Amino acid sequence: MNLTGCTLTQITELYRQTRQYSEQLCEPLAIEDFNAQPTVEVSPPKWHLAHTTWFFESFLLEGRTEYKPCNGQFSYFFNSYYHSLGERVARDQRGALTRPTVAEIMDYRHHVDEAVIKLIGEGLTDKQRSTIELGLNHEEQHQELLVYDIKYILGHQPTFPKYNDRFTLQSDSHSDGKTAIEEGIYSIGFEGSGFHFDNEKAAHRHILRAYEIDNQLVTNGEYLEFMEDGGYSNPLLFHSDGWNDLQERNYRHPEYWIRKDEEWHEFELSGLQPLNLRAPVKHLSYYEAWAFAEWKNRRLPTEAEWEVAAQQPDFSYGKLWEWTESAYMPYPGFRKPDGAIGEYNAKFMVNQLVLRGGSIASPKNHVRRTYRNFFTLTSVGCSAE
Amino acid sequence: MNLTGCTLTQITELYRQTRQYSEQLCEPLAIEDFNAQPTVEVSPPKWHLAHTTWFFESFLLEGRTEYKPCNGQFSYFFNSYYHSLGERVARDQRGALTRPTVAEIMDYRHHVDEAVIKLIGEGLTDKQRSTIELGLNHEEQHQELLVYDIKYILGHQPTFPKYNDRFTLQSDSHSDGKTAIEEGIYSIGFEGSGFHFDNEKAAHRHILRAYEIDNQLVTNGEYLEFMEDGGYSNPLLFHSDGWNDLQERNYRHPEYWIRKDEEWHEFELSGLQPLNLRAPVKHLSYYEAWAFAEWKNRRLPTEAEWEVAAQQPDFSYGKLWEWTESAYMPYPGFRKPDGAIGEYNAKFMVNQLVLRGGSIASPKNHVRRTYRNFFTLTSVGCSAE
Amino acid sequence: MNLTGCTLTQITELYRQTRQYSEQLCEPLAIEDFNAQPTVEVSPPKWHLAHTTWFFESFLLEGRTEYKPCNGQFSYFFNSYYHSLGERVARDQRGALTRPTVAEIMDYRHHVDEAVIKLIGEGLTDKQRSTIELGLNHEEQHQELLVYDIKYILGHQPTFPKYNDRFTLQSDSHSDGKTAIEEGIYSIGFEGSGFHFDNEKAAHRHILRAYEIDNQLVTNGEYLEFMEDGGYSNPLLFHSDGWNDLQERNYRHPEYWIRKDEEWHEFELSGLQPLNLRAPVKHLSYYEAWAFAEWKNRRLPTEAEWEVAAQQPDFSYGKLWEWTESAYMPYPGFRKPDGAIGEYNAKFMVNQLVLRGGSIASPKNHVRRTYRNFFTLTSVGCSAE
Amino acid sequence: MNLTGCTLTQITELYRQTRQYSEQLCEPLAIEDFNAQPTVEVSPPKWHLAHTTWFFESFLLEGRTEYKPCNGQFSYFFNSYYHSLGERVARDQRGALTRPTVAEIMDYRHHVDEAVIKLIGEGLTDKQRSTIELGLNHEEQHQELLVYDIKYILGHQPTFPKYNDRFTLQSDSHSDGKTAIEEGIYSIGFEGSGFHFDNEKAAHRHILRAYEIDNQLVTNGEYLEFMEDGGYSNPLLFHSDGWNDLQERNYRHPEYWIRKDEEWHEFELSGLQPLNLRAPVKHLSYYEAWAFAEWKNRRLPTEAEWEVAAQQPDFSYGKLWEWTESAYMPYPGFRKPDGAIGEYNAKFMVNQLVLRGGSIASPKNHVRRTYRNFFTLTSVGCSAE
Repeated sequence: MNLTGCTLTQITELYRQTRQYSEQLCEPLAIEDFNAQPTVEVSPPKWHLAHTTWFFESFLLEGRTEYKPCNGQFSYFFNSYYHSLGERVARDQRGALTRPTVAEIMDYRHHVDEAVIKLIGEGLTDKQRSTIELGLNHEEQHQELLVYDIKYILGHQPTFPKYNDRFTLQSDSHSDGKTAIEEGIYSIGFEGSGFHFDNEKAAHRHILRAYEIDNQLVTNGEYLEFMEDGGYSNPLLFHSDGWNDLQERNYRHPEYWIRKDEEWHEFELSGLQPLNLRAPVKHLSYYEAWAFAEWKNRRLPTEAEWEVAAQQPDFSYGKLWEWTESAYMPYPGFRKPDGAIGEYNAKFMVNQLVLRGGSIASPKNHVRRTYRNFFTLTSVGCSAE
Repeated sequence: MNLTGCTLTQITELYRQTRQYSEQLCEPLAIEDFNAQPTVEVSPPKWHLAHTTWFFESFLLEGRTEYKPCNGQFSYFFNSYYHSLGERVARDQRGALTRPTVAEIMDYRHHVDEAVIKLIGEGLTDKQRSTIELGLNHEEQHQELLVYDIKYILGHQPTFPKYNDRFTLQSDSHSDGKTAIEEGIYSIGFEGSGFHFDNEKAAHRHILRAYEIDNQLVTNGEYLEFMEDGGYSNPLLFHSDGWNDLQERNYRHPEYWIRKDEEWHEFELSGLQPLNLRAPVKHLSYYEAWAFAEWKNRRLPTEAEWEVAAQQPDFSYGKLWEWTESAYMPYPGFRKPDGAIGEYNAKFMVNQLVLRGGSIASPKNHVRRTYRNFFTLTSVGCSAE
Repeated sequence: MNLTGCTLTQITELYRQTRQYSEQLCEPLAIEDFNAQPTVEVSPPKWHLAHTTWFFESFLLEGRTEYKPCNGQFSYFFNSYYHSLGERVARDQRGALTRPTVAEIMDYRHHVDEAVIKLIGEGLTDKQRSTIELGLNHEEQHQELLVYDIKYILGHQPTFPKYNDRFTLQSDSHSDGKTAIEEGIYSIGFEGSGFHFDNEKAAHRHILRAYEIDNQLVTNGEYLEFMEDGGYSNPLLFHSDGWNDLQERNYRHPEYWIRKDEEWHEFELSGLQPLNLRAPVKHLSYYEAWAFAEWKNRRLPTEAEWEVAAQQPDFSYGKLWEWTESAYMPYPGFRKPDGAIGEYNAKFMVNQLVLRGGSIASPKNHVRRTYRNFFTLTSVGCSAE
Repeated sequence: MNLTGCTLTQITELYRQTRQYSEQLCEPLAIEDFNAQPTVEVSPPKWHLAHTTWFFESFLLEGRTEYKPCNGQFSYFFNSYYHSLGERVARDQRGALTRPTVAEIMDYRHHVDEAVIKLIGEGLTDKQRSTIELGLNHEEQHQELLVYDIKYILGHQPTFPKYNDRFTLQSDSHSDGKTAIEEGIYSIGFEGSGFHFDNEKAAHRHILRAYEIDNQLVTNGEYLEFMEDGGYSNPLLFHSDGWNDLQERNYRHPEYWIRKDEEWHEFELSGLQPLNLRAPVKHLSYYEAWAFAEWKNRRLPTEAEWEVAAQQPDFSYGKLWEWTESAYMPYPGFRKPDGAIGEYNAKFMVNQLVLRGGSIASPKNHVRRTYRNFFTLTSVGCSAE
């Protein structure tokens, strides 16, 4: 989201819409679902709603004499990781926090919203404007994570409850298309003036050898072939760490695949469905994606290869995040900003790989070819911080 | 609870009251609290409500042609440990079960209640009567555990919300009273015809040497002296395993004691309170209780010693469970009943110690001197299975 | 071992023999074997040799002006658990201690032996005499543990090296004999004047109901029937904790049973042998022993039942330690001695069960019917502290 | 090591020298030291001696009719990770393997050496020649790891035994020198015909922005300043994962720094020494190195930056391995070789970072500017696979 050139009225409207969308995403939930943390990587929906609010309160409102905080402890509860802003609830204890209740969190949201909208109405400094822009993009990121976390929570109920039909990939995939790129020097990273995150900054030249890359997603059917060919039993297809992970967590199919009545099914946000062999395969860890590529005698692209391919008209993306084999590292010339906001990116630039593209749950304005998402190697799609 | 000699109308009434009391205990809770499992030893309140219902459904209604189950999966969700009755949700995943919702569980309760009440109205076989008696006593046990688990859940919120004032110990303790028992042969275990659990059965003679036992509870003030004398830093006062537990879990005061504004406070169900030095100390693990006794140059009683002392008029009990140093083992002559119900006691007769007496949260009719409660040695008061 | 009435010359001789026997037990070992700690419950043979020496040094020699310690750090290295005597090497790090070397430990032994023998020659106070007696019994206990630990170390080599033939049970077992005991009041615990450990003291009367007890050990053949009947797959036969242990550590047969060329073998100190179906079954955990009894519709005895039965002429024991279902707790009237030696027993009187009888590796003078051995419930025979 | 152009006699000589050097490195050890695995990352010296031998046996001798294996089980014992070559002893159980003994391993070495030298004498195919070259380089890698593992083993004895004086860094460091590199396109990776590992292959062009890099190592004195400035207590200086690692493993100074008599000491292979403030700081994890750079307002170089700087005459290296912030990933165009040898590199190309330069323990012919070493982020110098 980019507020450049927006009037105050337009900013107010964008603020309202974005904030309301988070709440709309939670409408299909039961109160009981808001608090669940079935695995440490998942954050409870209530926490997302509160943490995104805390961001505006901390970076925009706090310290202003006109602002009366809702509850002195919210900043303790919903700070996710900013050590420079004080103590936090341990990440794995978020699900234990039954209080404040959902209703109180909603009050907190509306209390902060009112104050932010009043502030916008009174005019914004450049710094305030860019903090709002960052806060809205931060909220959009959490909206995407909310969808993943909701999927995890509902997909781990024995009743497999339906959420809604909005996040179903409609079209089938077929992986026979390839995009060819010539050897050359290419520019990588964000250029121009629109909104972008720090980690995309500092566009720079990069040399690539000639390569060919699939421009379609791998299908469930192809992945099933890999499984039926003994993919999960062959240590030669896996990284050493990936093989260990397989043994430890003991999985032999993608997350959300469920064997029922001797047929494969897949839990989708629309409920439990028979596996569609022509739909793209979802929720693979990096290790699984890499092993599949090994089995195909292929390899995963680097993020630079992906980004350059994504400039080609025949290369489509934006349905599902795609693993690259690039470690998430700062671009040459990256310097982290000062202050608490600067803490964010650098401290995660380790032990994670870059994913590119965007998914059906990504905010539309985040799906751009320079966007760098990042996950730990065993992630199969849930909230990452 | 004892149904001997009750008319069907009286049984209906006792059934209704007992079942309603479980729901009343949950009235002060927010929906969010029903699902919390902040530590694996705690069961979510929703789970208690469902599991006690499942007991009546499984042992009384299932298999009757007139009974239509509410939902085929409830028996999977809320079986706690009976292997002979099939698969169960893993104990540490109870908090992840957001569905069925609280409202659905309440419907489940009322559905089963209706069927049970109809059954009672039609007359009961002896076996049905004793299953109902067992089910109501089982529910009463869970009512007590509910109180402990609610305390844990609310006591681990940073807001320390108040539950209600019903579970406050009114009177102070003073540990200067002693009861003396002479050497002799005493009868231990339940005799007579009232309700009692399997593990109390088989009254038997037991030889005791002369001993003297405190007939009052240890106070917070006395325990604080132990702390201030370096109790928690002295390995000589602890069992080897207790000392290791201390290092691993890193605690230096009783559960629910909170240091705030340089004063000790205690979380009670009535909210956070300044520590009352004259009130009895609560929520000690066996290791802590044993270490305190070492420090006093005393020892904990065996369960037989406790039970014999409890016959004396000057020996009061029933406010707080009291650790004995007796392992929870079958009495001589104990034989477990056949079938699933028989699974219950024997399989837990290991790695646990007996507690005696009863607490302010115990059902009144459970507080008898032969009642054998049991916990693992590190428990400080929460749901035990 | 009992020094009552021994002359100084006899004491010297008993001291020499006992100390030498520890070294003889290690003769079949390679230097490499002395240091191994393949699991935390095993102590390296070198450690046993040093720790038993440290006992004499600490409790008998230290502080005497005529005694020059061998190395100031030995007392740090080889203190096993006595908190009152200062810091110790963490138990799970004993195998990492390559220095001092075996040769240096032998020097340490001989240095201490020389000083002790000199001391004996000069005459002994009563306290010194009883410390030597305790030290020699302590060394004998460690000799037994040495054999178990050596078995574990060699039995976990892929080459299954032979140790020697001295510890082979010669006779077969047949479990058709039973001993019947009448209801009555019996005396339990050590009476008389011979050597005994603290925990046997305080003989006391105990009431027993009539019972019948097998007077022969269970055979490998009988245990194999249990296995072939699905014993390890039936949760109803196990304690809840036992079943969890089974799942976690994933074992389905007794320790040291090895399936090779489609036949069961057993690692013995004489090397890998085909399983002898008529020999007694060895190395069961308490959980396995209990499950076997459940399967047989029997139960394990209490320690009192065992001790009374052991007075009967038809009841043989001393080949293998036998699990009882009694928790290891102090006898009525037990008071721990003052000082560091007093630390020993009480601090382990928790989370352990009593075993009775003695094994082929036990010192002959330890096999008496009042001797109380104790292990954690998952132990199958290795060093316990 | 490069065998190109060597005569058979020269190859025999190089083979002999290299093999003997491994044994020489172990000469200062006691037998007890050969088996130690004080932490899972360390391999026992005996294991290094056997595994390097196994490499020649498996890849050069096995299957030849003239070759009689020494013991059929060695290939099981000392395969480190090659899944395509069958089962292996679990990595964390290497220290439990007391048999075969050191003497037997030495016999195994000499048995294989004899067969290899005979083979060389009879003439070599190209494939055999390159397998010998690879095997010798593999042995040299393990010689380096041997030194690190020996340091770990001896440095974790409470006696801090001296190894020898050969691995002491003589010269002091002073970090005031900087090397400046201009923006440009540089070639990265190995070119030419000498020996090199797979992962250096496929030289390729890389664009670098202008940068300045220290050409001297950081000193103990500088690192101490970081410590005294509260470096280890400041979460803002650490990666999020690094900070968690710090809390979990609870370290507050570099490995081998020991506080004794209120002064910092450092365990060196020459024994415990007072900390030399002017010597380069050693044994930092990546997290510590990164935090130090943050504190200095600097950053770690990428491996390309390091490699280009290393071409400059004022840039010295080879004393200590230097962390880069580049993930260990294949170079563009890398294809793993077929067969078991091909398993080696690719499967470790994840979760590791590249180190460059070489240490005082590195084989001289390995210290070249294209050499890519790699470790997990928490490593501070011990055997890596």
